[in-house]
Amino acid sequence: MDLMEFWFRSRSVIDDLVEKFLRESRDWEVMEMSKYIMRDGKRFRGTLMFLFNGALGGEEKEAYPGALATEILHSASLALDDIVDYDEIRRGMKAAWAVYTNRKVIFVSNYLIPTALNVISVYGDKALRISVDLWKDTAVGALKDMYGKDEDYIRTVELKTASLFKLPAMLSSFSSGQSQYLDTLMEAGKDLGVIYQVIDDYVDCVTQEKEKLVGSAKQLYNLTSGKYESFVRLKYSEYKTHYEGLLNSLPLKEEYRDQLIALPDFLAFGLMGEAGIKNKIF
Amino acid sequence: MDLMEFWFRSRSVIDDLVEKFLRESRDWEVMEMSKYIMRDGKRFRGTLMFLFNGALGGEEKEAYPGALATEILHSASLALDDIVDYDEIRRGMKAAWAVYTNRKVIFVSNYLIPTALNVISVYGDKALRISVDLWKDTAVGALKDMYGKDEDYIRTVELKTASLFKLPAMLSSFSSGQSQYLDTLMEAGKDLGVIYQVIDDYVDCVTQEKEKLVGSAKQLYNLTSGKYESFVRLKYSEYKTHYEGLLNSLPLKEEYRDQLIALPDFLAFGLMGEAGIKNKIF
Repeated sequence: MDLMEFWFRSRSVIDDLVEKFLRESRDWEVMEMSKYIMRDGKRFRGTLMFLFNGALGGEEKEAYPGALATEILHSASLALDDIVDYDEIRRGMKAAWAVYTNRKVIFVSNYLIPTALNVISVYGDKALRISVDLWKDTAVGALKDMYGKDEDYIRTVELKTASLFKLPAMLSSFSSGQSQYLDTLMEAGKDLGVIYQVIDDYVDCVTQEKEKLVGSAKQLYNLTSGKYESFVRLKYSEYKTHYEGLLNSLPLKEEYRDQLIALPDFLAFGLMGEAGIKNKIF
Repeated sequence: MDLMEFWFRSRSVIDDLVEKFLRESRDWEVMEMSKYIMRDGKRFRGTLMFLFNGALGGEEKEAYPGALATEILHSASLALDDIVDYDEIRRGMKAAWAVYTNRKVIFVSNYLIPTALNVISVYGDKALRISVDLWKDTAVGALKDMYGKDEDYIRTVELKTASLFKLPAMLSSFSSGQSQYLDTLMEAGKDLGVIYQVIDDYVDCVTQEKEKLVGSAKQLYNLTSGKYESFVRLKYSEYKTHYEGLLNSLPLKEEYRDQLIALPDFLAFGLMGEAGIKNKIF
């Protein structure tokens, strides 16, 4: 199975997990809003949970809570981002706040976040503690996205985006019973998250007018004085090489190795494909 | 020392803990906003931590992390409430969102909440898990405050307000090394929290025009068809009696017993005194 097929399959499994999770909410209105917030995700982050868990020899079903919790946290963070950015469109439809009001979305998110942490606690207390920390990092990253210095660009990206890539990679060490590789997996997740966000910012720099750039995309533009292309190419290559080195240090099952190696390109081409600027820098 | 003196003292200790906590933030802007959000609280909830911890034989310094974390969570939840209510004034000054924008306040809160959970984790993993649950309850309560049925009034109050009274009471079982009383302490915290919110809603009903009532105060008004006074008197008496029963089942140090028994009246008279309607129903 190639990575694209793997992703289609895991995305569909995750959609089922999300549906089951929502059916179990006791409160109708919480369920409706949660459903709206969690609709139609690409489920990349949850897919990482399946990939790493499988590669380390874990049973597929052991990955379910981690994949579900990762996607709950990601969806909640997007719903909050849309409020603060006044973005009216998300995933092709009205943003949740534009449908349900800020007030309700803030509190549904505040409900979803600890609910996801509860789901994670099946992996034990250490997993829970690290998850709380990673979630804190995403909040610090969101702040740095707003007022961080241009020189801190990579640190901003690590915090705001890579934290939710580190999460499933970290959890897979527990789900597969291979917690001795915890640190390596966190690093690998970080590499993928940085690649994802740097390419995302690159896409923004290419497709948007300079004046309209915000957050980390603006930081990337300023940091490189508008010459972001070579910087992005360099970072992409650095992080990809580092990531491959980490993979080589892990006892991965052979049938997963190619898919894991393909991930950086898969994420990068996915983002560029969406934006119609395929292969512009690679 | 009577309860008023105890409160003045613990409030000042908590203010020092908050200041120390803020000084340790590495990020200047996060520190400034956190400071604004945490300013000038009454520190009632943190004071509960000192009272219960001391009453159960815990060293005072064992209560510090719990009192600090409780006040961080409480302040963050107020900052979010003000955004969703469009309240422009909090603690006699502009609400945080009106100074720093919604965007920043949402993310500072999202930073403060897991930071508080980290502080709590010194009491062990069970304390952390229960805290995550209680914080989830506050979010569900905030939702019920908006669209809950009038008949669910007490349940709404338990979730939205009593959760952050249960928190310090619960943590004191760990800080004092008396975790066998965990459930009783949670119940005692719940009683105090319900009393606090019912009186708070009563104050709203008395001081505001019927049309301006919102949330749980409106639910109280509707549930009792405007005859809230006898209902409030009844609930106050029920919960106070229940609370006293719980205190009698706990091995409390004698010098703390009177202060703990005085808490329901202290909270109720405090709220009514603030609003200038002292002793109207008791």
